[in-house]
Amino acid sequence: MKTSMRKSKLSPLTAVLSTAMLIGATLAQAQQASAPAGGHQGGVTPAEQKYQGAPSPLASEPMHQTSNPKAPPMTQAEFDRARQIYFERCAGCHGVLRKGATGKALTPDLTIAKGTDYLKVFIGYGSPAGMPNWLTSGDFDEATVDLMARYIQHDPPTPPEFSMEDMEKTRKEYIPVDKRPTKKMNNYNINNIFSVTLRDAGEIALIDGDTKEIINIVKTGYAVHISRLSASGRYLYVIGRDARLNLIDLWMEKPDNVAEIKIGLEARSVETSKFKGWEDKIAVAGTYWPPQFVLMDGDTLKPRKIVSTRGMTVDGEYHPEPRVAAIVASHQKPEFLVNAKETGKIWMVDYTDLENLKTTQIDSAKFLHDGGFDSTRRYFLTAANASDKIVVVDTKTSKLEAVIPVGKTPHPGRGANFKHPKFGPVWATSGLGDESIAIIGTDPAKNKANAWKVVQSLKGQGGGSLFIKTHPTSTNLWVDTTLNPDPKISQSVAVYDIRDLSKAPQIIDIAACAKIDDDGAKRVVQPEYNQKGDEVWFSVWSAKNKQSAIVVVDDKTRTCKTVLNDKRLVTPTGKFNVYNTQNDVY
Amino acid sequence: MKTSMRKSKLSPLTAVLSTAMLIGATLAQAQQASAPAGGHQGGVTPAEQKYQGAPSPLASEPMHQTSNPKAPPMTQAEFDRARQIYFERCAGCHGVLRKGATGKALTPDLTIAKGTDYLKVFIGYGSPAGMPNWLTSGDFDEATVDLMARYIQHDPPTPPEFSMEDMEKTRKEYIPVDKRPTKKMNNYNINNIFSVTLRDAGEIALIDGDTKEIINIVKTGYAVHISRLSASGRYLYVIGRDARLNLIDLWMEKPDNVAEIKIGLEARSVETSKFKGWEDKIAVAGTYWPPQFVLMDGDTLKPRKIVSTRGMTVDGEYHPEPRVAAIVASHQKPEFLVNAKETGKIWMVDYTDLENLKTTQIDSAKFLHDGGFDSTRRYFLTAANASDKIVVVDTKTSKLEAVIPVGKTPHPGRGANFKHPKFGPVWATSGLGDESIAIIGTDPAKNKANAWKVVQSLKGQGGGSLFIKTHPTSTNLWVDTTLNPDPKISQSVAVYDIRDLSKAPQIIDIAACAKIDDDGAKRVVQPEYNQKGDEVWFSVWSAKNKQSAIVVVDDKTRTCKTVLNDKRLVTPTGKFNVYNTQNDVY
Repeated sequence: MKTSMRKSKLSPLTAVLSTAMLIGATLAQAQQASAPAGGHQGGVTPAEQKYQGAPSPLASEPMHQTSNPKAPPMTQAEFDRARQIYFERCAGCHGVLRKGATGKALTPDLTIAKGTDYLKVFIGYGSPAGMPNWLTSGDFDEATVDLMARYIQHDPPTPPEFSMEDMEKTRKEYIPVDKRPTKKMNNYNINNIFSVTLRDAGEIALIDGDTKEIINIVKTGYAVHISRLSASGRYLYVIGRDARLNLIDLWMEKPDNVAEIKIGLEARSVETSKFKGWEDKIAVAGTYWPPQFVLMDGDTLKPRKIVSTRGMTVDGEYHPEPRVAAIVASHQKPEFLVNAKETGKIWMVDYTDLENLKTTQIDSAKFLHDGGFDSTRRYFLTAANASDKIVVVDTKTSKLEAVIPVGKTPHPGRGANFKHPKFGPVWATSGLGDESIAIIGTDPAKNKANAWKVVQSLKGQGGGSLFIKTHPTSTNLWVDTTLNPDPKISQSVAVYDIRDLSKAPQIIDIAACAKIDDDGAKRVVQPEYNQKGDEVWFSVWSAKNKQSAIVVVDDKTRTCKTVLNDKRLVTPTGKFNVYNTQNDVY
Repeated sequence: MKTSMRKSKLSPLTAVLSTAMLIGATLAQAQQASAPAGGHQGGVTPAEQKYQGAPSPLASEPMHQTSNPKAPPMTQAEFDRARQIYFERCAGCHGVLRKGATGKALTPDLTIAKGTDYLKVFIGYGSPAGMPNWLTSGDFDEATVDLMARYIQHDPPTPPEFSMEDMEKTRKEYIPVDKRPTKKMNNYNINNIFSVTLRDAGEIALIDGDTKEIINIVKTGYAVHISRLSASGRYLYVIGRDARLNLIDLWMEKPDNVAEIKIGLEARSVETSKFKGWEDKIAVAGTYWPPQFVLMDGDTLKPRKIVSTRGMTVDGEYHPEPRVAAIVASHQKPEFLVNAKETGKIWMVDYTDLENLKTTQIDSAKFLHDGGFDSTRRYFLTAANASDKIVVVDTKTSKLEAVIPVGKTPHPGRGANFKHPKFGPVWATSGLGDESIAIIGTDPAKNKANAWKVVQSLKGQGGGSLFIKTHPTSTNLWVDTTLNPDPKISQSVAVYDIRDLSKAPQIIDIAACAKIDDDGAKRVVQPEYNQKGDEVWFSVWSAKNKQSAIVVVDDKTRTCKTVLNDKRLVTPTGKFNVYNTQNDVY
């Protein structure tokens, strides 16, 4: 992050105000980034919260900037500085092209009418709706507030497009297909390997889930957002926020990169074909910028087809920047499901014929984010976080099945499936905006009365939850609260007994288990089960220059079992167990 | 047209040069507008040729204009004037957003590098590739050339989007569905009515094909590009260049408008659902700007779904402005086929479930324009005019069937189907760029060796052909040469005997039949058969302030039979026989 961070110097009053305001801002920003940024320097200050959104890789892209004659004049140097600040601080909520998403639209037709003075007040003091108070928080000085108020009256510069040729130019086949192993060349129990994002290091760690040893540290893109396994379990795909996609072969003696491609300027999602007959054949990855997704050969990452998501929202208005959020692979058909965030459309993309590409665009709700399958893997449940809803797609009929109101800003990750003692098969989500945990019936065939309703709502520790998790062999339901501003809450997790959900959850101080003796943030993020379902792994996540760890909890006794504190585990966040990820077990 | 037109004052040398150059320019512009603009003031001068492209309705739209600090400075008044000139003279070939189509890309990243002086030479003197010589032709003075050279170094202003709400606001139901007739209330032989575009009047004439009487003159959009009939033959849809879409009920005592909507800022195409069970149910219309199409209720024009065509070209590069060209309705499936010009993709749009919209994007070639079905109505043959190809889609399998190289800049209209004495079922296209007429085998089942090949190439009168036509009951093949710069050629048509295509065609001076005694252009355009196939109708098309006519030719004797010269027939161009249009007979 190039813009310097300053400790906020707040009066008691503004501190209270800004905390209240910034919870909104933080949560809003976190919606854009479910594995949030690092850069934390100690306790959770409001000023730090803002950096959850993470600097956009776009900030450093060369870009054409025009001057709007109706807007206040600016020098080229001012443009350059303002643009960088905009991409680092504002784009996450307001959009690269300023058409608005979690934040309001800031296009010149709107901002010029408001005028510099009005805009300065808004930027400086924020709003209860979630706009941060950049001046009173101490992040911007008066001159910066003035700069930004002028800047947003000029046209947003458009970052460059990224074509098939651009992608192909970045592609590397470190090990060509014919030089790769033809069978597994190592003795690892591949099914129980974990791929762990080392966020600020631009790496992932491959960890042997049985021995807890690090198998390899693999160079990847920055802040890997997600790891996905090919249908066979052999190939691991990881995608960085900078849109660098790496393909790792788990059959190698020492699993490592075999291919790589950059698919755009900013990205979040990757997936691979899982339908019978298409195992390991096709990969897909989606970008925030440009707003598109690309279908590739599964083993070489050769790009085959790019599809733009630009188009109409569910309200019938054109959106120039529908970012690609979660992607999952259907088990019912040879299709991917691709969430176009700002349009509220779920694309079902048939990958069997890329030259005559069939897609179904399902109208749902805004803004689509993350999600996962029900236990039968027929229904895809996904968050429409700006409308506080969970949307359900029937992947068998390729139609919208249901839209379910839940708590504020749901953030399921992939959610948690279990059999509820009273309501039958259910799927659960926690959320960013409040403490509620929604339990939704998922069995329209045998439990029709409960299907696609919140059959029970649990009270969690607070807002700021990113992930919820259970396992078919477990009776525990784990809920993190990573982004809660209270360190006691962000460093601990709640665990419920799914046999009796009326019981209060047990609160476990996971950070304490890590026994880290420094002033790092020690946020606890993302419960992830091992293959058998008798261990839950948590990241204890501090800044790059602080000690982080992974804490392994014994699921049955709910006690800390092992702490992984190898120095190489820098800023660990997401962890993906091979078997569970490969088979959509969650 | 707001910009004044001046008679060109050319030296003999520049006259020759500019004629050569301008044929290219004219043809290029004509690709954008198969029913070309009027405004002709006499003989066909090169300067006039340029106006074929017609002023864009965009020229008068309010638009946000920015100033690029790296480009030469301009005043607001200069911007306004340059923008209007650009939309009137340049956008047809270079695109509204200047990404290039028939003309080169003119985005600031390219133009600033060239510099004002270089650009002035190009604008002033043109190029053999088809760029008109705006200075030496006398159309621009030095100051205008300088203005345009500076203007194109600034960012192209983006015309406004057009949302579902924008459309709905313009919609009128003149006669609600429940107030319309429940059976035919007139004695017309509806099957033989002709809908005739009165181009510069912003009207269509409904003409009784039996009596040759005008039934009604109906107010429509400007320069109606096409008329299409609903599957039942009851409803007539006409769309103006200004994107005004009118719905006319032929069951009324006096057929007239029953509904209307504006679907964007500039348009060319409309079609209605024809698959069994879906007759008259859904209408679709496509726009040049914004680049999108809209699905509507067939009887009220209520917009139901807008789909953006913005996306990747067949070369894998993003295009911000893929204009919607021809649309046809499949007879094999409940689908529309929508040509996205600049991307080279043919969209097959399933209209059975608009909330879960299924489409297939077929990669073909650039730039898609017009086309029609083969005689079995299974295969859609369409021009990719920038690559001199005819592309064939199998509407049964929803796949690309073939790509066939033909003569320069094919322009089939909907083409002409007949049974070739030697090669079996064929489809023919003439073209804008040369005199060749390509005859293509269309029967892969029984004449496999001839299928999707040019089995015979005829030599026509010259380039500048817009339409070719025959009829199942006829042995004649008619070819116009409307845009040929030689008045003798543009005022006459060639007719071939399909029983022996080795014979030279007969040339018929259609304009002479009209016996018009003024100096109008009298271009002959678009042969159209009556229902029975024993008459061919031609438009003799002069400027708004000159006499035009429709000449009806006896197909058997190839002699002029009737001249329709009612004063209300102002600038007649396209003519659509109800039965033939309804049933795709051509």
